Amino acid sequence: MLERYRALAIGALLADVPSGGPHYLYDLVTEYPRRWGKGLRAALCLAACRAFGGTASVGLNAAVTVELFHNAFLIHDDIQDESEQRRGAQTLHGEYGVGVALNVGNMTNLLALQRLAANRRALGSGIAWRLFDETQLMLRHSLEGQAIEVGWIRDNVCDLDADDYYRMCLKKTSWYTCIYPCRTGILVATGQHDSVDVLDRYGWYLGAAFQIQDDALNLVGDFARYGKEIAGDLWEGKRTLILIDFLRRCTGDERERTAAFLSRSRAQRTAAEVRWLHGRLLAYDCVESARRSARELAAAAWREGRQALGPAAVETEDGRFLLGLPEYVVERSR
Amino acid sequence: MLERYRALAIGALLADVPSGGPHYLYDLVTEYPRRWGKGLRAALCLAACRAFGGTASVGLNAAVTVELFHNAFLIHDDIQDESEQRRGAQTLHGEYGVGVALNVGNMTNLLALQRLAANRRALGSGIAWRLFDETQLMLRHSLEGQAIEVGWIRDNVCDLDADDYYRMCLKKTSWYTCIYPCRTGILVATGQHDSVDVLDRYGWYLGAAFQIQDDALNLVGDFARYGKEIAGDLWEGKRTLILIDFLRRCTGDERERTAAFLSRSRAQRTAAEVRWLHGRLLAYDCVESARRSARELAAAAWREGRQALGPAAVETEDGRFLLGLPEYVVERSR
Repeated sequence: MLERYRALAIGALLADVPSGGPHYLYDLVTEYPRRWGKGLRAALCLAACRAFGGTASVGLNAAVTVELFHNAFLIHDDIQDESEQRRGAQTLHGEYGVGVALNVGNMTNLLALQRLAANRRALGSGIAWRLFDETQLMLRHSLEGQAIEVGWIRDNVCDLDADDYYRMCLKKTSWYTCIYPCRTGILVATGQHDSVDVLDRYGWYLGAAFQIQDDALNLVGDFARYGKEIAGDLWEGKRTLILIDFLRRCTGDERERTAAFLSRSRAQRTAAEVRWLHGRLLAYDCVESARRSARELAAAAWREGRQALGPAAVETEDGRFLLGLPEYVVERSR
Repeated sequence: MLERYRALAIGALLADVPSGGPHYLYDLVTEYPRRWGKGLRAALCLAACRAFGGTASVGLNAAVTVELFHNAFLIHDDIQDESEQRRGAQTLHGEYGVGVALNVGNMTNLLALQRLAANRRALGSGIAWRLFDETQLMLRHSLEGQAIEVGWIRDNVCDLDADDYYRMCLKKTSWYTCIYPCRTGILVATGQHDSVDVLDRYGWYLGAAFQIQDDALNLVGDFARYGKEIAGDLWEGKRTLILIDFLRRCTGDERERTAAFLSRSRAQRTAAEVRWLHGRLLAYDCVESARRSARELAAAAWREGRQALGPAAVETEDGRFLLGLPEYVVERSR
């Protein structure tokens, strides 16, 4: 079902991108969407829409919008993190340079806004403005979450705890990956704004579980399936729950060595140091510990989803799909 | 009058930026606006609004919107061009890193959208949607123009002519610097969309004249006034009208040497090569030749403005201001 919804949304997305125009623009907007992706955000939006009485076609504009925002976010995020691989191939800025890639990310954001505005004709001005408001809120949370994360790296903050991570994760990941798709799916289905928040807690837990599994795959995943360079997060100095847990439990010497490693720029870090840190994270069982937290969050997402959707949800295809996602996000290998 | 309108718009812009939030976000959104800028775009918007019967307060949201988009554009453009100086100080990414700066640019774009949406309450849903449509159109032109420019650099295109430059300049500079501010100013003043385009040709010529003078100042300006590193465009390999003119008139040897220089990345270019090219551009009188074109464009802008505004325009403060801008943009020293 994830695949079906993904195909629907990505097909509509690709059909929407203008052909022609200058080189290095529309042709590259389609680059990441054409590579394999899970399509989680579009599927959440379409499933929430259908679970609340809408049709897939009513939700399609919103689903394409969130996928476009997601792809723009990936392009910019890869530049910000100096990432090398994305979806099994070179990152866009790695292949075409930062100048081209940043611009393609901006154009992808613009196409997202255009698709959002298409709801005006399809669903009327009132709902279209509500979607615009929801989008502004989502973008604000995402950019604030991103600021928190890049700020930690810039200031080499090493005394974080799990709560810091979860606050960042709510803003950076959960809001745009889960909460926003659910809210806009419900909104276009019901046309009412008093019920848009019923899946907020489901989305929050689901997003956190998703992000932690992503961080785990970055350390123990299979590149051929995961599609990003393994241990890339260590090269980038990302403050994952895994690293935060290690910094709280390791010895004073290990902590000092890790802080010194993190204080250097990406280019100054060495493969030997990354291997050492990688080994320490595994020796302290930090990956498994984080995955236990992810499974607890997934269970909480299931309970919240079950309560929000009601007992009849399991009798519908979309209800079952939404309630199956928590397990999927923590067990996936890519 | 430019200074008066600038103060009005920048004051409203700064008052609009949230305080608090994570580090390296809202505090840095105000960084470029707090440095000295001309405020040309806000002033054009407010003057066009008043010239068409509106008040400054009716046009203020639109004026703040365009200044915010402009500042976001500067932040991203500096990253794309690897620029070092902006408005007399270090560029944002130079001081805080690309990760932080890219995010601040995105937040600045979001604040622009929010300010745009404020017109919904102030002027009604219909005009607010029209402004949204105008904004999408402007962003499309700007991003396409930017793609053309970064594509030329990436592909090391050396056989451009003046028409290529003007086409790029219309999209990259004129649209958002002049045409969009005029169109939105007229729109909020009149509430009608059938007259929004009357200053399009004025704006197109004005923007081209503005850009050429900017390119000239980059080569012969005074850093203390101009605020960017002198000859930065050569370090960045920008295809200015000045460089295009040189490449068409220089000897085969000079052309070959310049193409080889341009084929290298910014980091690989040397000060000696930049000095040589700088000297050649002056020896061939390319800067003065481009400035003559700029003055012709300014004269064309004046004629188009005069025709669009009618003979009574010179009797109003805003009409005189709009008709005085062509001379200002080509004679300014910063």
